[in-house]
Amino acid sequence: MTTKTVSFSSAAVKFIFDAPLSHVEKLVAGNKAIFITDDNVYARHKARFKLFPTIVISAGEQHKQQATVDTIINQLVELGADRKTYLIGVGGGVVTDITGYVAGIFMRGVSFGFIPTTILAMVDAAIGGKNGIDVGLYKNMVGLTRQPAFILYDYTLLKTLPAEEWVNGFAEIIKHACIKDARLFAELKDNNIRFYQKDLSALAKLVQKNVSIKTKIVQADEFENGDRKLLNFGHTVGHAVETLYQIPHGHAISIGMGIACKLSAAINGFSQVKEVSVLLKQYGLPPQFEFDKEATFKLLSSDKKRINNEMNYILLQKIGKGVVHPITMDELKERLNNL
Amino acid sequence: MTTKTVSFSSAAVKFIFDAPLSHVEKLVAGNKAIFITDDNVYARHKARFKLFPTIVISAGEQHKQQATVDTIINQLVELGADRKTYLIGVGGGVVTDITGYVAGIFMRGVSFGFIPTTILAMVDAAIGGKNGIDVGLYKNMVGLTRQPAFILYDYTLLKTLPAEEWVNGFAEIIKHACIKDARLFAELKDNNIRFYQKDLSALAKLVQKNVSIKTKIVQADEFENGDRKLLNFGHTVGHAVETLYQIPHGHAISIGMGIACKLSAAINGFSQVKEVSVLLKQYGLPPQFEFDKEATFKLLSSDKKRINNEMNYILLQKIGKGVVHPITMDELKERLNNL
Repeated sequence: MTTKTVSFSSAAVKFIFDAPLSHVEKLVAGNKAIFITDDNVYARHKARFKLFPTIVISAGEQHKQQATVDTIINQLVELGADRKTYLIGVGGGVVTDITGYVAGIFMRGVSFGFIPTTILAMVDAAIGGKNGIDVGLYKNMVGLTRQPAFILYDYTLLKTLPAEEWVNGFAEIIKHACIKDARLFAELKDNNIRFYQKDLSALAKLVQKNVSIKTKIVQADEFENGDRKLLNFGHTVGHAVETLYQIPHGHAISIGMGIACKLSAAINGFSQVKEVSVLLKQYGLPPQFEFDKEATFKLLSSDKKRINNEMNYILLQKIGKGVVHPITMDELKERLNNL
Repeated sequence: MTTKTVSFSSAAVKFIFDAPLSHVEKLVAGNKAIFITDDNVYARHKARFKLFPTIVISAGEQHKQQATVDTIINQLVELGADRKTYLIGVGGGVVTDITGYVAGIFMRGVSFGFIPTTILAMVDAAIGGKNGIDVGLYKNMVGLTRQPAFILYDYTLLKTLPAEEWVNGFAEIIKHACIKDARLFAELKDNNIRFYQKDLSALAKLVQKNVSIKTKIVQADEFENGDRKLLNFGHTVGHAVETLYQIPHGHAISIGMGIACKLSAAINGFSQVKEVSVLLKQYGLPPQFEFDKEATFKLLSSDKKRINNEMNYILLQKIGKGVVHPITMDELKERLNNL
């Protein structure tokens, strides 16, 4: 077990790496606690949920909506949750997003912690304090930025993680490498998913490396006025095609990164489009996809990143160096049509 | 026009006293803005809502629920609101509570301001950053603590305020006097509502005095770990009877203060029960009410103020001096039954 406390501008977060889930009992220090998880995770790890009462939601991004928040809040009232009760999200990004959000608004805010069960949540979704829900087709349209008290990493939870979820998680790892870390990109080129699945210590190192990349970016810019925007690399077109075609998040982000690389070539003279696309394929991810450009652009116009007639698009200068590039909606439309 | 900036621990709030509603245009400084109001206020002041697009919700505490939040968010998306758009709540406490809440969660937080149109919102609801909605029968079960950018006081809006709303507002003014200010209590004894309705300058002074009492308490304890709890005087039994009997907030709080005074006599030896009750009546408020003690106690058990088997009850030592008194739920039940 390794513990690391990271201070963000709003609060400090305790990261506990390589600890059993049951260690959570010490983290809540005698307070009441309630687990929030989804039916998939609950079915796979039932025995681990005996410590505290558990609220089980339906799995899947389509349930990251207000109706699920309503259900959780009604159950919290029934369970007699009070202002000192910890909410502990055990699951992937949907569970951590919704748990953090409910904890932020229930009784004007209670403490919460995360136990991520997917690669994607471990290296990305659980970190940084952004939480929230979708509103109809609009992703993360409602939410808060608020840090959890702790994030606990129990790698044994990954034993039952389905193959497609491993692929999803590596999309965000490749994103980190693209925007910030050429050495990580090189490491990824030398390996593949099966390698990390077999070598738990290599995986643990990879997860901690990615946690460190993300926390450093968030530390410098918790409320996304600057460098944190880089983490949106691949997430603009990515979110739109995810919504339109109901494809897994990692695949959608991979498609988004493919588009962003081409835009980088056209705007910035980025010369490594092929290299990124080869790495994505190596990890089972699609760098390309035929999508309806008009419908996609319409969704982009309601993206949170748009302000008036402009948006910040994340481009690459080179592998390991992402940049924030302001672009008008008109230019973006034209450039997408010309791809 | 008088401007005063008050710094809370989380953010600074600009108070603009005695300014026309139209002054709001300067406050948003060229950014997009959207008014949120209710159908009563809109009908009474239609001509004033031409500055910005306006979202009109149904008036009344029964609409301080998630369904109204959903409606507002859908309209914000339709209106093309973005991260730089100001939301401006124009109305009473329900409008300001819900506007502050929506502004806190929409796109993970946008700027907002208030233009209170009732005495109650001017001296209490609009101040302090607490916002949120009810969940079924449970008052303010969901919400945030987040400060508005500004609060603008246009006293001409009070010209059309219904008589019962004047009465409601004075319940919170009497509350402030009871917990913090014996001189204000004495001033109130010398006057009545008609006096303040006729003398706009006396009213303006009274409002500013009450703003100052509330802001000082909130400045010292924004997140309610200590003295801010005093503002809950009358609000424990008050909220429960408000919900159970659908009576106006001010009346409910008045009944709650009546009960809290009797509990103060029994627990603290408070000797001025009669004086408080006389003042409440002088301002058209009921100090007593026959209520179902069992149903009331059941609702109290789900009050946010309960933690495990205990609650902080606000009592008076003397007029002008409120105190936080921890009491077990069992003792509270017994004491309520013995009243």
